[in-house]
Amino acid sequence: MIIDVHGHYTTAPKALEDWRNRQIAAIKDPAAAPKVSDLKISDDELRETIESNQLKKMLERGIDLTVFSPRASFMAHHIGDYAVSSTWAAICNELCFRVSKLFPDNFIGAAMLPQSPGVDPKTCIAELEKCVKEYGFVGINLNPDPSGGHWTSPPLSDRHWYPIYEKMVELEIPAMIHVSTSCNPCFHTTGAHYLNADTTAFMQCLTSDLFKDFPTLKFLIPHGGGAAPYHWGRFRGLAQELKKPLLKDHLLNNIFFDTCVYHQPGIDLLTKVIPVENVLFASEMIGAVRGIDPETGHHYDDTKRYIEASTILSAEEKKKVYELNARRVFPRLDRALKAKGK
Amino acid sequence: MIIDVHGHYTTAPKALEDWRNRQIAAIKDPAAAPKVSDLKISDDELRETIESNQLKKMLERGIDLTVFSPRASFMAHHIGDYAVSSTWAAICNELCFRVSKLFPDNFIGAAMLPQSPGVDPKTCIAELEKCVKEYGFVGINLNPDPSGGHWTSPPLSDRHWYPIYEKMVELEIPAMIHVSTSCNPCFHTTGAHYLNADTTAFMQCLTSDLFKDFPTLKFLIPHGGGAAPYHWGRFRGLAQELKKPLLKDHLLNNIFFDTCVYHQPGIDLLTKVIPVENVLFASEMIGAVRGIDPETGHHYDDTKRYIEASTILSAEEKKKVYELNARRVFPRLDRALKAKGK
Repeated sequence: MIIDVHGHYTTAPKALEDWRNRQIAAIKDPAAAPKVSDLKISDDELRETIESNQLKKMLERGIDLTVFSPRASFMAHHIGDYAVSSTWAAICNELCFRVSKLFPDNFIGAAMLPQSPGVDPKTCIAELEKCVKEYGFVGINLNPDPSGGHWTSPPLSDRHWYPIYEKMVELEIPAMIHVSTSCNPCFHTTGAHYLNADTTAFMQCLTSDLFKDFPTLKFLIPHGGGAAPYHWGRFRGLAQELKKPLLKDHLLNNIFFDTCVYHQPGIDLLTKVIPVENVLFASEMIGAVRGIDPETGHHYDDTKRYIEASTILSAEEKKKVYELNARRVFPRLDRALKAKGK
Repeated sequence: MIIDVHGHYTTAPKALEDWRNRQIAAIKDPAAAPKVSDLKISDDELRETIESNQLKKMLERGIDLTVFSPRASFMAHHIGDYAVSSTWAAICNELCFRVSKLFPDNFIGAAMLPQSPGVDPKTCIAELEKCVKEYGFVGINLNPDPSGGHWTSPPLSDRHWYPIYEKMVELEIPAMIHVSTSCNPCFHTTGAHYLNADTTAFMQCLTSDLFKDFPTLKFLIPHGGGAAPYHWGRFRGLAQELKKPLLKDHLLNNIFFDTCVYHQPGIDLLTKVIPVENVLFASEMIGAVRGIDPETGHHYDDTKRYIEASTILSAEEKKKVYELNARRVFPRLDRALKAKGK
C-alpha cells in the first residue's frame, strides 16, 4: 500500500476562491461579508475536481491513499482576524471532509487551523477537535508563522504553542509544520518561505527541549526537511556545540521528513542521511511544481519514481517509507485502515 | 594551490569585542562613545590570534590562502545607525587588512560593508572603494537583510541595491551574500538564518532578471547554497513555471556556491548537482561548527577531506574547485597571485 502523507486540495472549485475573495473584500466592511451558506459546491463538482486531478494522478502513479488538507498557500492566516480565519478554516476543512467521504478509500483528512497572528493558539482547539472527532481527520497542519513571512510568533518550542501540543498528544495526531503564503516581498512563497520554515522549525526544535515536555509529540517537516538533511553535518555539529544529545536521540523520535524533494539526487541524499524510520512518502501534488522535468520526461513531483529508482533503500525499507512509517506517525490513520481490514 | 574563499576573523583579540561593547553601550549617549584610537591592538597580538588558529589549521589541512573578512555574526548591521556601522566596518576591515599584510601569502581581504537598515546602500561605496583600492581586497560580503532577521529591505533584485552592483562590476569584485546575527527569536543565527538567507537570495535572483541588467555581476552563495542544491529539481521546476530560462543559463553565469557543507553526503550532492565551474572551495573555519564529528574523528569544518574523498570529482575538477574557479570569480585575487608569479 502506498500512502502519500502530503496532499492539499489545490484544485477546489472556483466558487471557493470567489467566496474567499468576497470575504477578504468585506474585511473593511463586515456587513458586506458573504454568508457561509452563500458557498454552494455540489458533490458532483467536488468529484469532478478530484477525479480529473489528484485521483487521476494517484491511479496513474500507483498511490493508494492521500492525507488531504486544505490548500496551504490559501490558508493565509495573516488575512483578517480570528473570525475571518475561523470561518475560512471551517469551510476548507469541511470540503476536505466531503472529499474523504466521496472517496473514502483514497483520501483521509488533515486539518488547517484557524490561526491568526497574535491570537492565542488555544482558539484553534475547537476546530481541531471537530475535524478529528467528527470528520475523522488524522493530522493537522500547524503554521509556525501565521504572519506570512514576518515571523512575529514565538518559536515552536515556546509555551505559546503548548495548548495545541497537549491536544495533539491527547488525540494522537501529528502536525505537519507548514507555512502559508508569504506576504514579505523578500520571500517567494514556495521557493523560499516554505523551505526556510522547514529549516527554521527544525532548528527551533534542536535548540530546545520541547520533546522532553512532550515525548510522544510528532512533527512532520515537509519538503524533505528544508535544508536540514543537506546540512545534516552542520546540525549534528551545532547540537554538539549546544551540548544536546545526538540528533537521533534528541529529535528523531519526534521529527519526521516527507519525500517532497523533486529530483533523484535530493531523494538519495535524504534516504542516505536520515534513518529510514523517519522518512514518509509524499509528493504534494498538484502543488508548487507541476511541470515535466525535461531531464527525465516525467513530472518533477512524481516522487514515487525516485523512491522506486533508489538503490539506497531495500524493498523492505521502501515499504516503511510508503506505508509503515505513515501508520506509525498517524495512529488514527492506521486504525482507520485496520477498521477496513487493510 | 588551495584557496579557501570563505574565512572570517572570528578569533580577533578580545580588545575588539570590548571596544564594540563600549560603542553599543554609547548608542544612547553619543558623548560616551569610544574613539577609534582607543582601540589598540599590536601586530604581535594579531599574529598570535592567526598563527594559533586559522593559519595553524590551514597548514595542518593544506590550505594555502584564505579570502578573509570580518566576523559575519559581529557585523550586526541592525545595531545603531549608519555612523555606528560605518565606524565599526572601518575598524573590522582594517584589522583584516593588517592580517593580510602580516601574512601576505596566506590571507587576502574581503570587506564587510557599513550597511544599516533603511539606509541607502550607496553610503557603503566609500568604504568599499577604500578596501579594494587601498587595502587590495578582492571581494565584499553583502548582507541582504541588515535588519537581522526581520527582512525589511527590498529583495536583491531591487534597484535599491544597484549602486553596489555598479561599483562591483566596475571594480571586478564578487559579493558573498552573507547575513549577520539574527535578532529575531524565531531564527537561530547559524542554524536557520544563514541557511534561509542563502535560499532566499537564490530565489530572489531566480524570480528576477537581475543578471540581464548586470551580466558580469557575480554572487557567491555560501554554506553550499543553503537549500538550493538539495532542492535543485524544485528550483528547476519553479523556473520553468515562471517561464525563465534553464537555471544554467538564467543564473549559473553569475551565481556560485561554496563548499561549506559539513558532511560527505552533502558535498557529494553539491558536486553531483551543481556544475563544477560553480563550486568554490571553502570551509568557514573557525566558525559556526568547530567540533569534531564523532562519526569521522575529524572536524566537521575540515571540508577539504570531503573534496579529497569525493569519487564524483576528477583530479582536474578538484583543481577547479580548489583554485581555478576562485581565480575566475575573484579576478583581483587572480591578478594578485599572478603578480607574485603564482
